[in-house]
Amino acid sequence: MKTTRPADFTDVRATNLSVVLHHLRANGPSSRASIAASTGLNKATVSSLTGSLIEQRLLRETGLTGNRIGRPGTALALDGSAYAAIGLQVAADRLTALAVDFSGEQLLLWHRAFDGGPATTGSGRAVSAITALAQRAATRVRQQGRHVLGVTVAVPGLVEEGGTVRLSPPLGWADVDLRGLLSGSLRQPGLDVAVANHAGLAAVAELRHSGGHDLTYVTGAAGIEAGIVVDGRLLHGSRGFTGQIGRFTLGPAGSPTLADLAGVEPLVRRALPGFDPESLTDLAPAVEQVATLARFGDTAVLGALRDTGTHLGQGLALVANLVNPEVIVLGDHYAALAEWLIPAAAAELSRNTLAPASGGTRLVASGLGLHAAALGGAVTHLNRVDTGTLPTTR
Amino acid sequence: MKTTRPADFTDVRATNLSVVLHHLRANGPSSRASIAASTGLNKATVSSLTGSLIEQRLLRETGLTGNRIGRPGTALALDGSAYAAIGLQVAADRLTALAVDFSGEQLLLWHRAFDGGPATTGSGRAVSAITALAQRAATRVRQQGRHVLGVTVAVPGLVEEGGTVRLSPPLGWADVDLRGLLSGSLRQPGLDVAVANHAGLAAVAELRHSGGHDLTYVTGAAGIEAGIVVDGRLLHGSRGFTGQIGRFTLGPAGSPTLADLAGVEPLVRRALPGFDPESLTDLAPAVEQVATLARFGDTAVLGALRDTGTHLGQGLALVANLVNPEVIVLGDHYAALAEWLIPAAAAELSRNTLAPASGGTRLVASGLGLHAAALGGAVTHLNRVDTGTLPTTR
Repeated sequence: MKTTRPADFTDVRATNLSVVLHHLRANGPSSRASIAASTGLNKATVSSLTGSLIEQRLLRETGLTGNRIGRPGTALALDGSAYAAIGLQVAADRLTALAVDFSGEQLLLWHRAFDGGPATTGSGRAVSAITALAQRAATRVRQQGRHVLGVTVAVPGLVEEGGTVRLSPPLGWADVDLRGLLSGSLRQPGLDVAVANHAGLAAVAELRHSGGHDLTYVTGAAGIEAGIVVDGRLLHGSRGFTGQIGRFTLGPAGSPTLADLAGVEPLVRRALPGFDPESLTDLAPAVEQVATLARFGDTAVLGALRDTGTHLGQGLALVANLVNPEVIVLGDHYAALAEWLIPAAAAELSRNTLAPASGGTRLVASGLGLHAAALGGAVTHLNRVDTGTLPTTR
Repeated sequence: MKTTRPADFTDVRATNLSVVLHHLRANGPSSRASIAASTGLNKATVSSLTGSLIEQRLLRETGLTGNRIGRPGTALALDGSAYAAIGLQVAADRLTALAVDFSGEQLLLWHRAFDGGPATTGSGRAVSAITALAQRAATRVRQQGRHVLGVTVAVPGLVEEGGTVRLSPPLGWADVDLRGLLSGSLRQPGLDVAVANHAGLAAVAELRHSGGHDLTYVTGAAGIEAGIVVDGRLLHGSRGFTGQIGRFTLGPAGSPTLADLAGVEPLVRRALPGFDPESLTDLAPAVEQVATLARFGDTAVLGALRDTGTHLGQGLALVANLVNPEVIVLGDHYAALAEWLIPAAAAELSRNTLAPASGGTRLVASGLGLHAAALGGAVTHLNRVDTGTLPTTR
């Protein structure tokens, strides 16, 4: 009912380009005749669409194919080599840069130690470090002869659509126009630069990875956030401030939040009481130690994991009651601890969801590791091409 | 990225029919030239589209108009008179039937006392009563010479997309194939019959009424549910089980739920301690009495309203943190009590939302009264035509 823009030839062509790319991604190299037969598009249209895609170096001809349909024809295959997309991920303790080509193959994955936490007085140094890393990643993939489709930076917290970080508790930032600062520093007119929420981008990566169309990704890092994908689209809300489940609380002022009860940092403090709080700038080694002790059957550690799982399940039941996702993906550090968290969490999820059997919502561990958000940042640029918006390479 | 269906002429035509209808609904009677100029569609296309719409009796010519654009032409206006859509609303204590014509004008609004509550041993009698009322409403609008676009029944609780009521705590139903039973009883082949969640349908009605595209409607009736509209589309989740906010709880087994803490029935029991619980089958008179006492400044009643508002605000903060709606509409009985509920609720909403100023989420009272869901049921059929799916009148 809200569609007021007339449909025109451009929309139809974008949709059909998307159909051809999707077909090739799903089925591998195919002849024009086979694409036409499978998609229902007529042959002349397929010829025109594939012509544009070959010209743009998104497809290439790969010799003859013996298809089931019609005479053998020249097979067309996706060609990712001409393009790269870059994702960056900003955490309080480190920066991650990742680049993939159009077919999704990873071109680089870099980590840099980083002090972006609340201790930093301003965000100036942080922005310089982010810009320098983005610049270096872009230079590297360009040296390989690839065109950079865009750069997207993942930041935990509240990120406005225009790329301003309104509030990032893990980074201690407020009102940082990160997209503006980055665009200014990168000095590359035409480069598509974006900034978006960490959990949302991780959900986008998970969506492409899983092939599903309905999932909620939960970050277990310095904070807890959710990236919610519904019908294949990320839920942005009216201002972009969705998924703040770490802030969940029911009760009077001062009641603990879900982040207090089920956060990775509180878990580590409970499981490893001897751990120096100051050393907790990087959670990864501590999480590894928790996992090792759990594997050895350490009772106190298993108890802390069960408690965390219980609280997490109570929080996720709120999500299941409200948005009824097909699957909730435990990401980041939760993934490494999932085998101990999930049993307790699933029991609470089921107990606290009105719908029988948790409304069908399954809890699974992410398989994308600690750089899912960076991957998601890169994937957003691939998705744009996949939906038929072809790159403008000048 | 999920679009794999090729776009074709039918999609374009549906979109463009929708554009023309939307233009006329927003701007009133207009000439073909003026429609073409405002929508960007060419005049031949507008002539073809309006020709179809006139043939279908969705538009009529209303004489000459002196438009700013071009020569005076024949004005076209929306014509709702040939069509009607029917919505029914099932509550534990009563049935409501409502019919509107295509222009949204109300044709009938009927209430029937009804015993659909948990006391009823089966849903058989309830289904008979619902069918009889739907039948009578359809007959009435047909006698007025109108074609019935469809009937949608609103039910509180978990409703599957196919129209099976999986679980309705207020009605005490489980696994009732209401759509199947209704379709069988109505014996009108071709009649579009649907069953959907109460809160979701009320949100659809509110959406059409408000003209917004991002809102959450909260029912305050025998239960508390939310209907969530994002980007103009109702959130269905993977199985249709969204919006179950009454089931919200954080804490060990036995902790009170949001429905216990902020429900209308608990409020009435707190505010009117002398009230006979048995008489609470119909909440409306009790809610009226609460409002009257509040208006007279009854301290105990005002305290109960403040408590309810506080708990409700804590629950709505979970919604705001998760889906960041532009507006939360307090519906059903909450609307009648909104002036006392909203101050406390808004304070808690703000305190418990990570985003400053509640992420922009405003709390307002619904203006649609106690039959918003029935209206929403009818509106779904109007929306289908509005998005370009013209009725098939045999």
